[in-house]
Amino acid sequence: MNKLLALPLHELVRKISARDITAEAVVRACIARIEADEPRIRAWQFFDPALPLQQARLLDAGAASGALHGLPIGVKDLMDTADMPSGYGSPIYAQHRPATDAACVALSRAAGAIVMGKTVTTEFATFKPGPTCNPRAPVETPHTPGGSSSGSAAAVAAGMVPVAFGSQTAGSIVRPAAYCGIVGYKPTHGTLPLAGIKPLSPSLDTVGVLARSVEDAAFFVGSLARLSLQAFDHPRLRIGICQTPHWERAGSDTRAAMATAARLLELGGAAIGELVLPTACAGLTEAQIAIMGYEASAAFAPELRSHADGLSAAFTTLLASGQAIDGQRFFAAQQLAANARHAFDALFEQVDIVLAPSTEGEAPAGLNATGDPIFNRMWTLLGNPCVHVPLGTGANGMPVGVTLIGPRWGDAQTLAAARQLARLFS
Amino acid sequence: MNKLLALPLHELVRKISARDITAEAVVRACIARIEADEPRIRAWQFFDPALPLQQARLLDAGAASGALHGLPIGVKDLMDTADMPSGYGSPIYAQHRPATDAACVALSRAAGAIVMGKTVTTEFATFKPGPTCNPRAPVETPHTPGGSSSGSAAAVAAGMVPVAFGSQTAGSIVRPAAYCGIVGYKPTHGTLPLAGIKPLSPSLDTVGVLARSVEDAAFFVGSLARLSLQAFDHPRLRIGICQTPHWERAGSDTRAAMATAARLLELGGAAIGELVLPTACAGLTEAQIAIMGYEASAAFAPELRSHADGLSAAFTTLLASGQAIDGQRFFAAQQLAANARHAFDALFEQVDIVLAPSTEGEAPAGLNATGDPIFNRMWTLLGNPCVHVPLGTGANGMPVGVTLIGPRWGDAQTLAAARQLARLFS
Repeated sequence: MNKLLALPLHELVRKISARDITAEAVVRACIARIEADEPRIRAWQFFDPALPLQQARLLDAGAASGALHGLPIGVKDLMDTADMPSGYGSPIYAQHRPATDAACVALSRAAGAIVMGKTVTTEFATFKPGPTCNPRAPVETPHTPGGSSSGSAAAVAAGMVPVAFGSQTAGSIVRPAAYCGIVGYKPTHGTLPLAGIKPLSPSLDTVGVLARSVEDAAFFVGSLARLSLQAFDHPRLRIGICQTPHWERAGSDTRAAMATAARLLELGGAAIGELVLPTACAGLTEAQIAIMGYEASAAFAPELRSHADGLSAAFTTLLASGQAIDGQRFFAAQQLAANARHAFDALFEQVDIVLAPSTEGEAPAGLNATGDPIFNRMWTLLGNPCVHVPLGTGANGMPVGVTLIGPRWGDAQTLAAARQLARLFS
Repeated sequence: MNKLLALPLHELVRKISARDITAEAVVRACIARIEADEPRIRAWQFFDPALPLQQARLLDAGAASGALHGLPIGVKDLMDTADMPSGYGSPIYAQHRPATDAACVALSRAAGAIVMGKTVTTEFATFKPGPTCNPRAPVETPHTPGGSSSGSAAAVAAGMVPVAFGSQTAGSIVRPAAYCGIVGYKPTHGTLPLAGIKPLSPSLDTVGVLARSVEDAAFFVGSLARLSLQAFDHPRLRIGICQTPHWERAGSDTRAAMATAARLLELGGAAIGELVLPTACAGLTEAQIAIMGYEASAAFAPELRSHADGLSAAFTTLLASGQAIDGQRFFAAQQLAANARHAFDALFEQVDIVLAPSTEGEAPAGLNATGDPIFNRMWTLLGNPCVHVPLGTGANGMPVGVTLIGPRWGDAQTLAAARQLARLFS
């Protein structure tokens, strides 16, 4: 890898701002990696090297522009870009060229970031995969990178960009991060703006990031949200191991990763205990499925009315299941979530961080599906910050890891614990 | 008024569905009212009678299409329409013609509703007024209709349409309803979809409705959300009177309206008591202001970057105040809101409905400002359903009324209490 692309983000930005290196050199390093690996990985829905190069030269010619000066980023193709097509993973929007950037893209650009291109998303951030291959799998046996932030995860894992936007409604940041062996950070719900991102289920939709390290993820999101996500100083972390109601779905690789994480954190000085979820948290996964279906069936009313033949069979089925949910059931699911949030919040008097599985196991082989978000849905509905920390590989040599979950608005604390676990592993 | 436009919505729709009357006749009645009064009221940002007439003829020629078959509606110009311009009350978007309807518009059209046109909104649903006049004020002394759903409230109050979409982030449904003497219903946060509506502050933005009666509001929203909002049967309503922390801002007309509401509800058999807000609810108004500013400054990052000279001074100031709020303060405000929601939820073990002021008083004279949402901000942040019930006029002959607030997801109960109060008053 070009050594520029191995620098921590804050150092990369500092060097570009100080004119030690040019933004153009960094962008060229990314372009080289993309051109070398894209035929195999197919992470990009849209990539035109002329656009980031032009931005880089403008930045190099002007004054330092902000906290992300010269940083090349990937943008999930669910997010609008005024200078690039925005297709949402659907043929309906193949020609779509929005008038305005998504708010998170505009915030990045205002801070000096350079959009390298648009990364592949599954159809409307749901389940129909794009062509992206998992960079960690051998060429001859392609594996899914996970979804829906498929291209963002693959591009970061392949070293094409140091960081990329993702979004999560069920498990669309944590799962691809896990399958590709990188860090995925889903901030507390509502931390980064959703404006200009194709809505799927607003109670759940969360903007986050795929990154090479916890530090990079914290630096990027902290800069955009004007949040201090620096090291949280805690004398002795109390970690609650949560098997979730879906433990029987956890394969041996995931069980081993959970044991590794617990052992490492204990070695690092943490107090480890089993966490029993309060009864108010029962049914969260089912509530997440109901809310996502109901809200998606409303959000996609325009496409159902005018472009139904452009929707995949799987997405049509998802919307039909949502239309079968009436307002009472939706309200009941929201009430359950509200009660569960309160009960789960209270648990953080006893623990600082919850440790849970990220996925059932390694990335499944093949490109026809993106894996199951079963272990992510409940945390997305609760809205708590989640960080996926990669912890080596499983039986097939593909990445595995765990999710650390902190209290809502306790993102700094969550990232600090994730950083600690990552350091203990390395 | 044309007697068709005096029918309750469910009866109007039933008659059109049964071919007792044509959708075209109803649309023509609306057009006649609009053409007669629009030069004075200026409720419409876009109105072309050919479009709703064409829709009406299509509906009359086909099979009954849904729960809102043939119903003419007004759509706030913050909401996208594929066949009409969508300007968001800003010169930046004067030429904007979205590719897709907003989800709430598509849901309405799928149910058979006919969009009469786009109603005036203040700039991006904030504070810079449009040209709309309050229909209840004399021509020679124009009064604000309130905002930001200015045109929707004025159009319904003037009988131009029986119902219109509004949206509320601070007080943009309840306040114009109060100033124009009609019913305003802000459902529980998240009930109707926000997709395709220009985002201001997603933690607060709520789609709702301006209507002539509580029954109409319940029928319209219930149809769209597949919610049963029929009469909630309660042996004896327990009403908690909440003066809010802003009672000193309540003028004599508002104090009289509060007393009238309490007296009527008591006559109707309710148990009335003073409600003391829990200490966890202190600071909600300030938290609402912080969250709205922070989220608006993120949501409008694209306009700040590319169209700053198209923003009004007032809106620029709002965004600058939001940019001065860091992520920690935003998180603290969200945490306060979460704690307050839990504490406020618990109050509904003691009361069924909370009674509170809608506004400081009657609509202020003049068109340079839309009044203050001081009495609405906290309920919008809590997310509870709110119904404004008009209760006659104040000292200057302009409308006054009160807000009834129910538990989150207790919309049926809230509307039932509002219906009861409206009946007791009439």
